[in-house]
Amino acid sequence: MTTYPNFKYIVTAQTGLARCGQIHTPHGVVETPNFIFCATKAAIKGATPTDLKQAHTQIILSNTYHLFLQPGADTVAHLGGLHKMLGWDGPMFTDSGGYQIFSLGHGSVAQEIKGKRNSTRNNTLLKITEEGAYFRSYLDGSKHVLTPEIAMQVQRKLGADLIVVLDECTPYHVEKKYTQSSMRLSHRWGLRSLDEFYKTNDGKQAVYGIVQGGVYDDLRQESVQFVNENNFFANAIGGSLGASKQQMHDIVNYTASLLRKDRPTHLLGIGGIVDIFNGVRQGIDTFDCVHPTRLARHGGALLAMPLQAAEGIEPKNEHINLRNARFALDTRPIDETCGCSTCQTFSRGYLHHLIKAKEMLVMQALTVHNIYFMNRLMKAIRQAIQTDSLDDEQKKWIM
Amino acid sequence: MTTYPNFKYIVTAQTGLARCGQIHTPHGVVETPNFIFCATKAAIKGATPTDLKQAHTQIILSNTYHLFLQPGADTVAHLGGLHKMLGWDGPMFTDSGGYQIFSLGHGSVAQEIKGKRNSTRNNTLLKITEEGAYFRSYLDGSKHVLTPEIAMQVQRKLGADLIVVLDECTPYHVEKKYTQSSMRLSHRWGLRSLDEFYKTNDGKQAVYGIVQGGVYDDLRQESVQFVNENNFFANAIGGSLGASKQQMHDIVNYTASLLRKDRPTHLLGIGGIVDIFNGVRQGIDTFDCVHPTRLARHGGALLAMPLQAAEGIEPKNEHINLRNARFALDTRPIDETCGCSTCQTFSRGYLHHLIKAKEMLVMQALTVHNIYFMNRLMKAIRQAIQTDSLDDEQKKWIM
Repeated sequence: MTTYPNFKYIVTAQTGLARCGQIHTPHGVVETPNFIFCATKAAIKGATPTDLKQAHTQIILSNTYHLFLQPGADTVAHLGGLHKMLGWDGPMFTDSGGYQIFSLGHGSVAQEIKGKRNSTRNNTLLKITEEGAYFRSYLDGSKHVLTPEIAMQVQRKLGADLIVVLDECTPYHVEKKYTQSSMRLSHRWGLRSLDEFYKTNDGKQAVYGIVQGGVYDDLRQESVQFVNENNFFANAIGGSLGASKQQMHDIVNYTASLLRKDRPTHLLGIGGIVDIFNGVRQGIDTFDCVHPTRLARHGGALLAMPLQAAEGIEPKNEHINLRNARFALDTRPIDETCGCSTCQTFSRGYLHHLIKAKEMLVMQALTVHNIYFMNRLMKAIRQAIQTDSLDDEQKKWIM
Repeated sequence: MTTYPNFKYIVTAQTGLARCGQIHTPHGVVETPNFIFCATKAAIKGATPTDLKQAHTQIILSNTYHLFLQPGADTVAHLGGLHKMLGWDGPMFTDSGGYQIFSLGHGSVAQEIKGKRNSTRNNTLLKITEEGAYFRSYLDGSKHVLTPEIAMQVQRKLGADLIVVLDECTPYHVEKKYTQSSMRLSHRWGLRSLDEFYKTNDGKQAVYGIVQGGVYDDLRQESVQFVNENNFFANAIGGSLGASKQQMHDIVNYTASLLRKDRPTHLLGIGGIVDIFNGVRQGIDTFDCVHPTRLARHGGALLAMPLQAAEGIEPKNEHINLRNARFALDTRPIDETCGCSTCQTFSRGYLHHLIKAKEMLVMQALTVHNIYFMNRLMKAIRQAIQTDSLDDEQKKWIM
């Protein structure tokens, strides 16, 4: 038996480095490029599994770190594993938990790119040893350890289709020397993760290796080599992506260029439209980010920039904020070209009222819209790759 | 043209005083007895119009007081009226706004019955004159006046099918003399409301008169006579219902016995299962209460008491609270006999996790369950009336 008997990745179309493909999993096929929505604590905030399906969602993820602490992997397993527990029968992804242990100490990759990353680690991260990471629960301060072996055991119990090796995720501000030693620790953890995976491999899960190396090309090259040479099903690009959009694009571009092309590649934690177009052009196949759903809970509705410009809004963002008084009497839907249930049912003026009145229904409505939007975007990108028209397609979404 | 050309009430079955009927409105038929769900600020918290339909909801209400202050009746009218704005094409009800002006001063009827009503009016109610009620906005303290004429004009703009005359709602603790003079003021306001209604009657709305009179039989009798003799489409029982469940039942029973039977009768603000069975037996046709949806947002799932007893829970309440640790590993749905999307999808253990993790999805899930439950209850009651089996039916729900 091969390591991943029930998984495969097929390229179905290509233009430049951009490609369409299919990731086959025991819970169905993910068409790529695609976007993975974040059910962090085993729930998409504001959307039911039915909502997700109706908005054409193909894949969601949950975070091992959060579920490890609450309700615990054994409880998830007792409740039937993530798919059954969530009522989601499509493909699922879990990360290893490493990212949260470290990011809760020093901020997210997205914050770092925006220059907002904390410059000091907080005390939830206690210590990192060869064995693993010792940390305190963000919930109650209790002490825990996550080792590569535990990360895989937990992900086995959670039961997602696509799982990830444990890594240390270093921030931008650390020295190259630390980034290098951390990366090499992550490589050793990656091998231990794979060893642990083999012990109980039942063909139901497939493992992603993670490329680390921070902002340093030579380290990225070394890390890509490690991932390429080991028996991972797929690649994930992790670690610091720099302190600016341009630096992120440079690192992603360089890293993607070195990765083997017979595996799907995931870009961790990135979900802006401009970043997705950039990534797709470099051969990135999947993206994830809390942005679309978090934005919804703050009144933001994704709207293509040319549509914003067409109605006289200066297109500074990839979304409009319906809290703005300009929308109070607006009888139009968020997007007249959108087929989501929110745009079929509600006016901007009503959504504005719901925000002002603090009605939770607006979080549901905007979440559904933003999910639908992202799925529509990814479908349009797939079609544009098939018809070699990515440049034209991009102009329909961003300016 | 008659006053209510597009409305009618038909009795279709009867057992004792309990009856099945149909309220015909321009937006469809409400089968009675039925329950009206509260979209207070023009939204059901946690449920979309599609959710409501899938849970077999026939009618919802909004509160004139809240919408008068935010976003304002003109804005609702600009956005197409309540039906279009909410995306709800079924029958709708609005109250007159009077109840909130007074209850924000001294607590709700349900609180009063539980002995929790405030004993002093707060300063949001400024003064009551022959003209109307002067009050401050609960949002920003701004001063407003609601007269019978304004209450009808506002409800005209909101556009619900079923609307209500302005009344003063007196609490339990006031003297009989005040209750009497307040009731008579409400009668004069009722006539002014009707006069205002006639001026712009387009056949799209029908008016409820309200029976006041507090806990005093002779006043209730006088108020019923007023409602019976005037040209209302339907009856509503309002005002203080006493300080205990037994007193409420006594007042409802006495009042209902005097009301004319060729009109539907609504019992304002009451929604406990035991109260519904009592009301139905007295000929009450519709009920409304925030309880089922509010309960959902606090982790409460309605569950028939005999089903609770069958699994060893002492049936003290008409619901179970999923926050309770006993449900953490419970793989069963809330109610194995329930067909709602929540019970078809989620386990109690998962819902318990979502509550502990403060995930809003659980509010959506429990709201849908509780709405479905109430609609199922009301359907069962209608069927029991048709088959003369209310006693047997009641035993399936409460103990």
